[in-house]
Amino acid sequence: MGHSATGYRTIRINERDNVAIIVEAGGLKSGALLDNGIQLFDDVPQGHKVALEDLTEDAPIIRYGEVIGYAESDIVRGQWIHEGLVRMPDSPPLDQLSFMPRPAPALVPLEGYSFEGYRNPDGTVGTRNILGISTSVQCVAGMGNLVVKRIKEKLLPKYPNVDDVVVLNHSYGCGVAINAPAAIIPIRTLKNLTRNPNLGNEVMVLGLGCEKLEPKQLITPVADSNKHKDILELQDERFQGFAGMVDGIMAMAQQKLERLNQRKRETCPVADLVVGMQCGGSDAFSGVTANPAVGFATDLIVRAGGTVLFSEVTEVRDGVQKLLHRVASEDVGRALIREMKWYDRYLELGGVDRSANTTPGNKAGGLNNIVEKSLGSIIKSGTSTIVDVLAPGERVRRKGLIFAATPASDFICGTLQLASGISLQVFTTGRGTPYGLAMAPVVKVSSRSDLSQRWFDLIDLDAGNIASGQATIEETGWELFRLILDVASGRKQSAAETLGLQNDLVLFNPAPIT
Amino acid sequence: MGHSATGYRTIRINERDNVAIIVEAGGLKSGALLDNGIQLFDDVPQGHKVALEDLTEDAPIIRYGEVIGYAESDIVRGQWIHEGLVRMPDSPPLDQLSFMPRPAPALVPLEGYSFEGYRNPDGTVGTRNILGISTSVQCVAGMGNLVVKRIKEKLLPKYPNVDDVVVLNHSYGCGVAINAPAAIIPIRTLKNLTRNPNLGNEVMVLGLGCEKLEPKQLITPVADSNKHKDILELQDERFQGFAGMVDGIMAMAQQKLERLNQRKRETCPVADLVVGMQCGGSDAFSGVTANPAVGFATDLIVRAGGTVLFSEVTEVRDGVQKLLHRVASEDVGRALIREMKWYDRYLELGGVDRSANTTPGNKAGGLNNIVEKSLGSIIKSGTSTIVDVLAPGERVRRKGLIFAATPASDFICGTLQLASGISLQVFTTGRGTPYGLAMAPVVKVSSRSDLSQRWFDLIDLDAGNIASGQATIEETGWELFRLILDVASGRKQSAAETLGLQNDLVLFNPAPIT
Repeated sequence: MGHSATGYRTIRINERDNVAIIVEAGGLKSGALLDNGIQLFDDVPQGHKVALEDLTEDAPIIRYGEVIGYAESDIVRGQWIHEGLVRMPDSPPLDQLSFMPRPAPALVPLEGYSFEGYRNPDGTVGTRNILGISTSVQCVAGMGNLVVKRIKEKLLPKYPNVDDVVVLNHSYGCGVAINAPAAIIPIRTLKNLTRNPNLGNEVMVLGLGCEKLEPKQLITPVADSNKHKDILELQDERFQGFAGMVDGIMAMAQQKLERLNQRKRETCPVADLVVGMQCGGSDAFSGVTANPAVGFATDLIVRAGGTVLFSEVTEVRDGVQKLLHRVASEDVGRALIREMKWYDRYLELGGVDRSANTTPGNKAGGLNNIVEKSLGSIIKSGTSTIVDVLAPGERVRRKGLIFAATPASDFICGTLQLASGISLQVFTTGRGTPYGLAMAPVVKVSSRSDLSQRWFDLIDLDAGNIASGQATIEETGWELFRLILDVASGRKQSAAETLGLQNDLVLFNPAPIT
Repeated sequence: MGHSATGYRTIRINERDNVAIIVEAGGLKSGALLDNGIQLFDDVPQGHKVALEDLTEDAPIIRYGEVIGYAESDIVRGQWIHEGLVRMPDSPPLDQLSFMPRPAPALVPLEGYSFEGYRNPDGTVGTRNILGISTSVQCVAGMGNLVVKRIKEKLLPKYPNVDDVVVLNHSYGCGVAINAPAAIIPIRTLKNLTRNPNLGNEVMVLGLGCEKLEPKQLITPVADSNKHKDILELQDERFQGFAGMVDGIMAMAQQKLERLNQRKRETCPVADLVVGMQCGGSDAFSGVTANPAVGFATDLIVRAGGTVLFSEVTEVRDGVQKLLHRVASEDVGRALIREMKWYDRYLELGGVDRSANTTPGNKAGGLNNIVEKSLGSIIKSGTSTIVDVLAPGERVRRKGLIFAATPASDFICGTLQLASGISLQVFTTGRGTPYGLAMAPVVKVSSRSDLSQRWFDLIDLDAGNIASGQATIEETGWELFRLILDVASGRKQSAAETLGLQNDLVLFNPAPIT
């Protein structure tokens, strides 16, 4: 980006902020002149913060217009505000928070946008046409992997309208305390995964026969009331050996593929789209470039009548006071607080607190603590009213902006959002991850241009131009919105789809293993 | 097995037992005459128990010479003792248990047996020669799967002495509370998995670059002190895009394959063998046929100087008083009690207790509760002195019989035993499971002949002949011992290897997700 006539570029988000971040790739040396007239007192890495004024010990450090910490000692104008200089503030106390419901969405409706999707018997709409093979227990994972390979080789080429075959392997089903209070989470997740719109209500279930999680628990009757014909158990006495099992699975898969192959895309309103927003490998640019652009696209989808899920409890917890003024009703506000409290308690039982979230990569990228990370993370939710809150793995029941409570772990959040019913995910990254999902396309947005240049075939959209001033948040938000509709319609593939990159499903199981 | 002149066959284990089990496949009808002269009062399924005498309400029900429960109501001779008639006894209270150390193994040494293994720089000996690609975070799982496929296609055929290429995908590494007290378990597991003898001390590590679990934590210097050259991080700036990453991984894999390919099997004493024992999908025959045969083979391996791990805390907990008289020292006894207490507390925090272990399949197979299941399970440990106790994922440090504390979950127990250093596993099953491990051969033993006939290509050894009286425990135990040496030497493949059945690694992570 280089040294402009007026000094090196910095980004300050809110007029209350007493810090700004350095844009220059590779960072800047002590003595460098910034565009705000400040001369650097220290060497400062890219994405890290510099003090815009002298701060005395204990003074609040403000970013996004919010206190992200307090000065551990006196700080001078132009000094690098590294982790060691910032004392983290306490979390907002959940019992004393006030909230003011906003009864109706405040945004202007957006009309004239649609996508080409697969309409399902249950009313949902998929963006892909995938044969899903669910499993009731990890015991069958090896068999699942072998048969999917065989189906892809022998059957899939005959059914050109079917995009993929996916086995829903996981670590649950047996050897678990299935009656523990928290077991509801993994069970509901597995059940709702089979209902994901991209699987066309045509999932088949591979079971063993003696597991705790009964295969029929995973099947929800949709059009017809007898879905148990879609279950195949390896211990079934009609199977003679391995070859018999494989033949049985292949025969059922063929029937399913024939039905799926007859489906056609049709024009659907954006109201039929359910998009999940997530970030992973975040840096200080995430909250400045990629996440605000995602927030803008979130607003566009919601204005067009669609549904957006945002998640990651530990990255919302420290910004929750901002969200409580955007809830549609007191019930939604209470549900939001309920999910935060559940997680506080869950972490406490494990002997940790919210500070366990930030990673070495976050810190190297300039994020000092979870407060700063959270404020940059929740920008993905845009500005609209939060109409509902889902407990982990619950299915969407309303259109609009929804908080789906999940851990921030990328693969677990992805799995839970798939269970909630997303048909597409947007994933922002600062440090870079080759993340992809098997059950839905993932559009990856980078927060920095140097990442999207280096990872030219792994990143779908570069939001780094916002930092350099070559693009605005609005422009990049619109670009993302149009890209979402293109990918949803199958007109474009995401980078992860083209390369075949798929992370495994990872369940959130807070209950004991036995 | 049919109706003999003297009535249908039953099995009674101990002379104190007041119950016996029905051997006949398909079970027996009310009125059938048994070989002990009793006429059945009810229809009784195969493997289920029948009362050998009249029992009044609250009378102890005795199997394996131990109380497995108390009569819920009066029971008559010949009656089916189903789950509803049995009240479970309390667990042995861990603070009041006495133990009497047995300082030296009581068994006669066994000489003249050896196997052909791969000797490693760190002194361990492998039964297979596998290239292991460890991963420091689930973010790279998709990439790992793609490159393993490519390595198998393009490189592996050029290195005929290398058996396989395995990517150690898992759900840990980031999005986890890495400083939580219990995080030591998954971290130690991942670290020790890279040291498994079948990976020849030549593991390479695939990392991302910003994850919480640093790749270098997974590498233990062995012969040379700088193993960090075996780490490859996708965020490394030298990689241009996906293709660059793949090229980098392939180049490192080729170097590793060249070294592994030069290794040769050599004759090793049984003392160099580390075998894990496990059961899964158990039925009432497991404790009568397969597990006693395994116990006999365990004794043979220990007598020959080798090492055997048995595991599954929730299946030892209710029989622990029997094991405490077999410990080598007070320290070992205290360690055993420590692991039981840890698990009691772990289950309690999750709102459950040990009764969460038994599965619908166990119950259908005739096992009324965890006490009965435990007594049949610990028989796998044979009769020798317990010389050490390992916490979950700890590495073996002694030869002989070792209790490796793990959950009973098949895939988690398998993963933890691999971390502890087994080079081969024996797996007994009554209901049937297609279980297999990627990192070590698994010899599967069935408890019933009808299962091994139906699953002719999935089961390696039939112990069901013990129930019908056509084979003794000793004969089957010797057969298993010889099969273990054949498979360990590569002279035979296990059924799971031949078919390519491999369960995924599943970590035991009792710490929170963030």
